[in-house]
Amino acid sequence: MSGVIVTDPPKAAAEDVEALAGFGVATVHEAMGRTGLLPARLRPVQQGVRIAGTAVTVLSWPGDNLMIHAAVEQCGEGDVLVVTTTSPSTDGMFGELFATALKRRGVRGLVIDAGVRDTAELREMGFAAWSAAVCAQGTVKATGGSVNVPVAIGGQLVRPGDVILADDDGVVVVPRERARQAAEASRAREEKEAASRAAFQDGQLGLDRYGLRETLARLGVTYRSYDAHVRDGDGA
Amino acid sequence: MSGVIVTDPPKAAAEDVEALAGFGVATVHEAMGRTGLLPARLRPVQQGVRIAGTAVTVLSWPGDNLMIHAAVEQCGEGDVLVVTTTSPSTDGMFGELFATALKRRGVRGLVIDAGVRDTAELREMGFAAWSAAVCAQGTVKATGGSVNVPVAIGGQLVRPGDVILADDDGVVVVPRERARQAAEASRAREEKEAASRAAFQDGQLGLDRYGLRETLARLGVTYRSYDAHVRDGDGA
Amino acid sequence: MSGVIVTDPPKAAAEDVEALAGFGVATVHEAMGRTGLLPARLRPVQQGVRIAGTAVTVLSWPGDNLMIHAAVEQCGEGDVLVVTTTSPSTDGMFGELFATALKRRGVRGLVIDAGVRDTAELREMGFAAWSAAVCAQGTVKATGGSVNVPVAIGGQLVRPGDVILADDDGVVVVPRERARQAAEASRAREEKEAASRAAFQDGQLGLDRYGLRETLARLGVTYRSYDAHVRDGDGA
Amino acid sequence: MSGVIVTDPPKAAAEDVEALAGFGVATVHEAMGRTGLLPARLRPVQQGVRIAGTAVTVLSWPGDNLMIHAAVEQCGEGDVLVVTTTSPSTDGMFGELFATALKRRGVRGLVIDAGVRDTAELREMGFAAWSAAVCAQGTVKATGGSVNVPVAIGGQLVRPGDVILADDDGVVVVPRERARQAAEASRAREEKEAASRAAFQDGQLGLDRYGLRETLARLGVTYRSYDAHVRDGDGA
Amino acid sequence: MSGVIVTDPPKAAAEDVEALAGFGVATVHEAMGRTGLLPARLRPVQQGVRIAGTAVTVLSWPGDNLMIHAAVEQCGEGDVLVVTTTSPSTDGMFGELFATALKRRGVRGLVIDAGVRDTAELREMGFAAWSAAVCAQGTVKATGGSVNVPVAIGGQLVRPGDVILADDDGVVVVPRERARQAAEASRAREEKEAASRAAFQDGQLGLDRYGLRETLARLGVTYRSYDAHVRDGDGA
Amino acid sequence: MSGVIVTDPPKAAAEDVEALAGFGVATVHEAMGRTGLLPARLRPVQQGVRIAGTAVTVLSWPGDNLMIHAAVEQCGEGDVLVVTTTSPSTDGMFGELFATALKRRGVRGLVIDAGVRDTAELREMGFAAWSAAVCAQGTVKATGGSVNVPVAIGGQLVRPGDVILADDDGVVVVPRERARQAAEASRAREEKEAASRAAFQDGQLGLDRYGLRETLARLGVTYRSYDAHVRDGDGA
Repeated sequence: MSGVIVTDPPKAAAEDVEALAGFGVATVHEAMGRTGLLPARLRPVQQGVRIAGTAVTVLSWPGDNLMIHAAVEQCGEGDVLVVTTTSPSTDGMFGELFATALKRRGVRGLVIDAGVRDTAELREMGFAAWSAAVCAQGTVKATGGSVNVPVAIGGQLVRPGDVILADDDGVVVVPRERARQAAEASRAREEKEAASRAAFQDGQLGLDRYGLRETLARLGVTYRSYDAHVRDGDGA
Repeated sequence: MSGVIVTDPPKAAAEDVEALAGFGVATVHEAMGRTGLLPARLRPVQQGVRIAGTAVTVLSWPGDNLMIHAAVEQCGEGDVLVVTTTSPSTDGMFGELFATALKRRGVRGLVIDAGVRDTAELREMGFAAWSAAVCAQGTVKATGGSVNVPVAIGGQLVRPGDVILADDDGVVVVPRERARQAAEASRAREEKEAASRAAFQDGQLGLDRYGLRETLARLGVTYRSYDAHVRDGDGA
Repeated sequence: MSGVIVTDPPKAAAEDVEALAGFGVATVHEAMGRTGLLPARLRPVQQGVRIAGTAVTVLSWPGDNLMIHAAVEQCGEGDVLVVTTTSPSTDGMFGELFATALKRRGVRGLVIDAGVRDTAELREMGFAAWSAAVCAQGTVKATGGSVNVPVAIGGQLVRPGDVILADDDGVVVVPRERARQAAEASRAREEKEAASRAAFQDGQLGLDRYGLRETLARLGVTYRSYDAHVRDGDGA
Repeated sequence: MSGVIVTDPPKAAAEDVEALAGFGVATVHEAMGRTGLLPARLRPVQQGVRIAGTAVTVLSWPGDNLMIHAAVEQCGEGDVLVVTTTSPSTDGMFGELFATALKRRGVRGLVIDAGVRDTAELREMGFAAWSAAVCAQGTVKATGGSVNVPVAIGGQLVRPGDVILADDDGVVVVPRERARQAAEASRAREEKEAASRAAFQDGQLGLDRYGLRETLARLGVTYRSYDAHVRDGDGA
Repeated sequence: MSGVIVTDPPKAAAEDVEALAGFGVATVHEAMGRTGLLPARLRPVQQGVRIAGTAVTVLSWPGDNLMIHAAVEQCGEGDVLVVTTTSPSTDGMFGELFATALKRRGVRGLVIDAGVRDTAELREMGFAAWSAAVCAQGTVKATGGSVNVPVAIGGQLVRPGDVILADDDGVVVVPRERARQAAEASRAREEKEAASRAAFQDGQLGLDRYGLRETLARLGVTYRSYDAHVRDGDGA
Repeated sequence: MSGVIVTDPPKAAAEDVEALAGFGVATVHEAMGRTGLLPARLRPVQQGVRIAGTAVTVLSWPGDNLMIHAAVEQCGEGDVLVVTTTSPSTDGMFGELFATALKRRGVRGLVIDAGVRDTAELREMGFAAWSAAVCAQGTVKATGGSVNVPVAIGGQLVRPGDVILADDDGVVVVPRERARQAAEASRAREEKEAASRAAFQDGQLGLDRYGLRETLARLGVTYRSYDAHVRDGDGA
């Protein structure tokens, strides 16, 4: 895997990134037709933080962080570093020194489908990270890889310049061309949800609000009292 | 799976639920002869919260939250919603809108053997949840299932009206008929533990307090000095 | 498995343990040539705590905490209890009563390749623990095992008296004979890292600081503009 | 967990068990409305074998096979031994000696949500087994448990006397009262499948046979040529 | 997720597919610079079978096989059906009836990042399959998805018309534009391997053949006799 | 991790290895007091094969097989290659070319706590292997490691020259100094098992043969008829 470092990829417009930053991961994922969600194994190392930025992607060899060094140079204001490996690994490829270098360059956080370390220091310095593992296992700098090529994490494609949005619920990727549309759809969804929230606080049921009683009837789901259910021998 | 929604199941007595709420999950599980514990994969999304309530059970299709909508209507003051799926899933079937509707009805929390989302909002609004995953993955409303039928989670049967007790250590189910007995046995156990705690603070050993030196001897466990152990070639 | 309880094993010197306590797990692991790290499944039940101490080791039967009772007697000031089982288990073998007894004896914390319970109480009383699971599942006291024999956790050997260092990043073991050397190497590494940190804050790149541009060239990793990359048909 | 050994439970009628033995696990599971399937982690240690019999259930402590010894006495002609543990375990609780004793008693096989060993010998002697693990790890005989109580494996309840059907696809449980109905529904399903098989061999499409073109249209799934799809910017 | 069914995608040339069919998965993966390998969780349900064909891709809802029905119509001579789900699932989405329909259309096999069932029947009828699970759990036909869109499995992108090569070692995807080049590189690699094989049979060492003694020396790996190693205190 | 290659370690006596080869893994593990078993994740790539030999150990970087090349030179007649990595990995570090080289040197097989590939070829050439994964993922030759140092796999220490015994049930390590004793204890155990087998074939129960009725009584396990059990409200 000799690899390539791609420079100056197109990026989502900054104003669209900012617009997306106003919504939660679940909202944006829903607004995009339930697409774009990275796998549930990516968990935040901090709580209560949300970031949005443009992806700088890294494809690394497991146990080897050479290409993260190469990627730092490609990172700038408003980026999010996105790292994956050619085969599954929990090694702690990223720590506080990398975060120091990235923070200086205006990078907003890290998403890594491998391990991270120095988590106490990352929290202290306010550098946000989402990872598949927390592990102090060290890495070498011996093997080539690529920067700013499309990478796949779980079932999702992440291209350089795509928008990465991450919060306590996980990480979603928004293709750079769809950032504006996703922000608008998110706003529409949020308004709809606000109306539902108010209705639910007033005591309306989702069954009625979403017309689901008809769905239940169509599917043959029936209502029975507990006593009748047990009398007929189906209860326990 | 056409399904059934069972109404008005019997419930554990409110005073027994309150009594159980005074004990930790580990204490009640022990007091019931080490039974009733739901699997360790169910983890709280918040820290330092304990709830007790009566189960409203849901059996859903994976990736489909139709039956949770049906279940909301069956939930009332003092209940805990318990959701499982017909096959394993980490989808985020439950979020802040459901929590809003349930909170208004006096529901005390959620236990779900699948995913939950909007976790930051759930913490903020004080709606307690235990789940097998945190994941923003959205779901449809297309497939039937059942409400208030007995469900099995891990190796445990949960029936509607059974008591659910959950804290930082996990979730335990207490059969509704055994709620009073479990509360009494928990109180007895706690008193015994208080005495042990005091004894341990005074420096007594469990070996002596529980008569375990005899057990060790009966099992053939022997004491040897490190030097003798190494000299005989079994050390490292 | 009749088992043996080994008494008075040699221990790392207290001053070396104290010296190691000044460094993070990642630093010490790196300073020892990237060795000694226990598996990533061992996670802290608290946040922001670091402990260092000398290992008292326990090899237990799964679902059985008899040998932890035997181990308490072997524990003293400055020790860390290290527990593993003969086959994988998530049972909650250790809780607040054990912690009470150990705290009185001056023990600094617990590392267990199984489950722990009473986690809220452990946090409240300030007894630090790292475990493979949080689970209230109770255990019996029926089967023999050993105390202060060498145990292997993940790929690492832990002998009685070895230094255990644990923080938010995980757990590392330092062989007792290498404690001083590890502390010195950690100090050297920390100084080097401080210099790197300052350089990164000044904007230097790891590529330049560590001479990695040559490595990239030797490995055949090339730089290309995004436009050229796409034009040649390798982008997406 | 002091435990109980329940004797002489009711059993499904032998003729219904025989009838069910004529169908595959998938067929019976479907015929029962997609219920009763034990979790996918239960895999056969042999290939190409199908068994059906009435369950003798065992609830054991992890790492302890005492209760399997107690269960042997409760087993007879046409039974299937079903073993689970109070907490997850991969220990090899069952091997060739147990199989020898069970075979003499006319037992048809083993389903165990833990480990099995002596797998080469089991294959050689023709004793069928489904297990969550193959592992030689030995067990003790020190802790109580129960025989012929209802047990839950994955999300399914297995009661003594229920029908267990197992083949290369896994294991399904049929409640003893529903055995006849399940056999009849399986036969009906198989006839329907035979007709579908013939139709598919003739080239008919499921889309047409099951009326799914309407479903697709209702769900808004559209057909587009690859060229149009790429031209509009949604392809890759 | 309303979804789209894309018709008539471009496909790799049949002669290139045939050429690739002559090599093993490991060989082709290596020949492409160690890229294209699908995750290790995809295992064959049969042994000793190798297939090569062009991908027809399916993106389905978990627990729902509606889109496989839609995909059958898009499949033809020389294709391989590739199925993934929007979130992880082990449900048995594919069985013998689908295989019957696909076989008639000349389809060479199935790769599914979910469950498969009727495995005994699949082996008997000679329809090859690779899956993440074997599980009889049934599915519904209720939710939309897509056919012949790019899908990501593990870290790999699979586009319709790409070459799928599968054998006992797993599954590799070859982008349709690189099929010829991959076949040629595979042939070259196989010739090189034949030479190495002969050399190894003659007793040559990889250390010498690949010039690795220099690598070891550069990395500081040293040779020491066991006696010296133990005398210096580093052995065990 | 600069690493060391240790030459000429002591080995278990050939006659003791041959003696152990006559027993199954479960038998030897039991005969050694239920010790020495490597983790259940190590599975054979073939069926019905048993090997015994002396360990040549390798500690490798994940995704890097350089040290296996170094180890080949240290392997000879009657050895078994034992490979582990510094952090978990499923990469296919070993394939048919290595097997060719090792077979010529009289090596009996491979045990690897990582991935293996070319499994069809390994089966064909009769080179036995046990691995944690089957995966074609390729590896580099870039990072140092060690040969013939003690390694820990799961909870077990494997030293160079220790006996490795592997069959369908898994892998057990016998310390080289205990090889003779383990063979003798295995023989004794097998005789005891033969007597038990005969007794079980004659219909004796383990409850009586092993005196377990007393154990059950002491533990408070009681016998109850199903009817009484249900009447008292504990059945289901």
